[in-house]
Amino acid sequence: MIKLKTAICNELNIQFPVIQAGMAGTATAALAAAVSSAGGLGTVGAAYMSPETIRNSIREIRDRTDKPFGVNLFCTKEQGSMAGFEKVQHVLNRFRKDLGMKETFDFEKPPQIFEEQFQVLIEEKVPVISTAFGLLPPDKMEQAKKAGSKVISMVTTVNEAIAAEKAGVDIIVAQGSDAGGHRGTFDIGAHPNGANVGTFSLVPQVVDHVTVPVVAAGGIMDGRGLIAALALGAAGVQLGTAFLISKESVAHPVYKKALSESTEESTVITKSFSGRPARGIKNTFIQEFEAAAEPLPFPVQNALTNDIRKAAAEKNRPEYMSLWAGQATRLLRSDEHAAQILENIMEEANQVLS
Amino acid sequence: MIKLKTAICNELNIQFPVIQAGMAGTATAALAAAVSSAGGLGTVGAAYMSPETIRNSIREIRDRTDKPFGVNLFCTKEQGSMAGFEKVQHVLNRFRKDLGMKETFDFEKPPQIFEEQFQVLIEEKVPVISTAFGLLPPDKMEQAKKAGSKVISMVTTVNEAIAAEKAGVDIIVAQGSDAGGHRGTFDIGAHPNGANVGTFSLVPQVVDHVTVPVVAAGGIMDGRGLIAALALGAAGVQLGTAFLISKESVAHPVYKKALSESTEESTVITKSFSGRPARGIKNTFIQEFEAAAEPLPFPVQNALTNDIRKAAAEKNRPEYMSLWAGQATRLLRSDEHAAQILENIMEEANQVLS
Repeated sequence: MIKLKTAICNELNIQFPVIQAGMAGTATAALAAAVSSAGGLGTVGAAYMSPETIRNSIREIRDRTDKPFGVNLFCTKEQGSMAGFEKVQHVLNRFRKDLGMKETFDFEKPPQIFEEQFQVLIEEKVPVISTAFGLLPPDKMEQAKKAGSKVISMVTTVNEAIAAEKAGVDIIVAQGSDAGGHRGTFDIGAHPNGANVGTFSLVPQVVDHVTVPVVAAGGIMDGRGLIAALALGAAGVQLGTAFLISKESVAHPVYKKALSESTEESTVITKSFSGRPARGIKNTFIQEFEAAAEPLPFPVQNALTNDIRKAAAEKNRPEYMSLWAGQATRLLRSDEHAAQILENIMEEANQVLS
Repeated sequence: MIKLKTAICNELNIQFPVIQAGMAGTATAALAAAVSSAGGLGTVGAAYMSPETIRNSIREIRDRTDKPFGVNLFCTKEQGSMAGFEKVQHVLNRFRKDLGMKETFDFEKPPQIFEEQFQVLIEEKVPVISTAFGLLPPDKMEQAKKAGSKVISMVTTVNEAIAAEKAGVDIIVAQGSDAGGHRGTFDIGAHPNGANVGTFSLVPQVVDHVTVPVVAAGGIMDGRGLIAALALGAAGVQLGTAFLISKESVAHPVYKKALSESTEESTVITKSFSGRPARGIKNTFIQEFEAAAEPLPFPVQNALTNDIRKAAAEKNRPEYMSLWAGQATRLLRSDEHAAQILENIMEEANQVLS
């Protein structure tokens, strides 16, 4: 029998089995607090935040709600080789020119701040630490447990799920290829374009190979998706794109517009923005970059394209922005508060069951 | 409320909302009859069959069962350009050599036999005509209706579904990218690698845009998948890989072995075997062909590689066979009759609901 009170509701002390994805760049404290106070698990996408911003975000959530919430970080060992750097800058300078920006061949490697980011989560004893791209190393897993934090890790294959359980995670998010944004695949060397298993296929196979609760991610937008995920054996769902378009999301208005106009045919998986495979709406940036050069590895490519994406946003030029989106965007309804989205999901889920 | 007696049970006069995919090359009369007599809809994969073989297959099913069944054909206008022919034969001759076959540069274009194939279905008044790669043209749709046949067409996008409904199909199969075998995408020019939307995302979006019943396909193996599909709004499921491994399937033993040893990470979408994108287990053929040449269009590439696939099968060499498979093969259980597979699905589906 399918029940809406699942293992993750107990484990995380939340009312509804719905997690808001920790989308780096758009999942701020305001969005996380809105989702958490409405009964889901809100998550701050802290991967690109300074330790100070992370601390401020955590405090902001705690000012707004006393409900549990999560903070998401990237766990990745990928190193930034600079081979091909000049060619990449050459292509990016075409985009800069088109945006009225100055050409540049300068570049500073982004500093490694994971240690400092992580220590803020420990000091603040956040209720949930969630990871993408990999797992917490053993010492940090121990620190997290001692701090009383639950640990959630995102996986894209059964083997990654088995490794996650072995490492001690409390909940596994199985991210299907339907998902928007970065593929969570641990080893991009082995899967250059990400391990891209559809949500429908991935979830039951992961469920069969671990004992911790599994949360489905990728293409889930509504109550039908929640019930389908539970039928496949999941104990909940994680939604990114659905909350990206909410009133509380800081996603740029032209980005929200692109989301609401997109279809299931609009997206591709590309490494051109960040050096890691990610699903987004196909635009000029992706088409022209992919035709001209190989991206540098993450996080170098991400840092290199940052000024362009920022300038494009300032100038309302979506053709040069990273428009991360999943494959079910026809199901989006715009202009809703996060709490309303959550309420719709639960109401529809109850309708499917009753 | 999720019910196992769905619109397609009434429409097709079948007991369970489960269709066996019309896999060309492996879905014979014996498999179709086994599925149909067990309460699902069996389908003969007739696309590569001569009109005579189709007629014999239909009669064989009718000898074995009085239940409804389907016959699947490819509806495609793609023409076989021969540009690049010599390079392709050069690469294929490496494979032929490795298999102890003679080199060849000869080739006869496969004859166009769709008209003759289709007329057999009309003459035999088959209960269900199903199509992949496109829709029946208006005159044939009219003939099918007059013959009392229901028409099912497979789609991979919402727009294809809308076109299918407009053309008069009775049931739409929404094929997600999780599916094994050929992508059903109509216009390969617009989507060179197929429109690859995950089953989880595709199904509810198609359901929202048509009024005829929608059947989910891609990554569905068990009762969990059936209930999930129904939750997403589907009126049934279509299973290919799950029946490929059944005792009644004529899939080669080394192919069945490869299926049962494969995981969610094993498959890729490739055009190397047939010229149309299709999901199969990555092997030597795919890796070496893709590294060396561009395939010719369907059906020319398919005809060109036919002797190699046959010889590889005779010599138990799976590395040169087309090992079509979906993304959920960890859920396969081998050595079962088709009727047992169907019974397992329905039993598990009832468990999920009860």
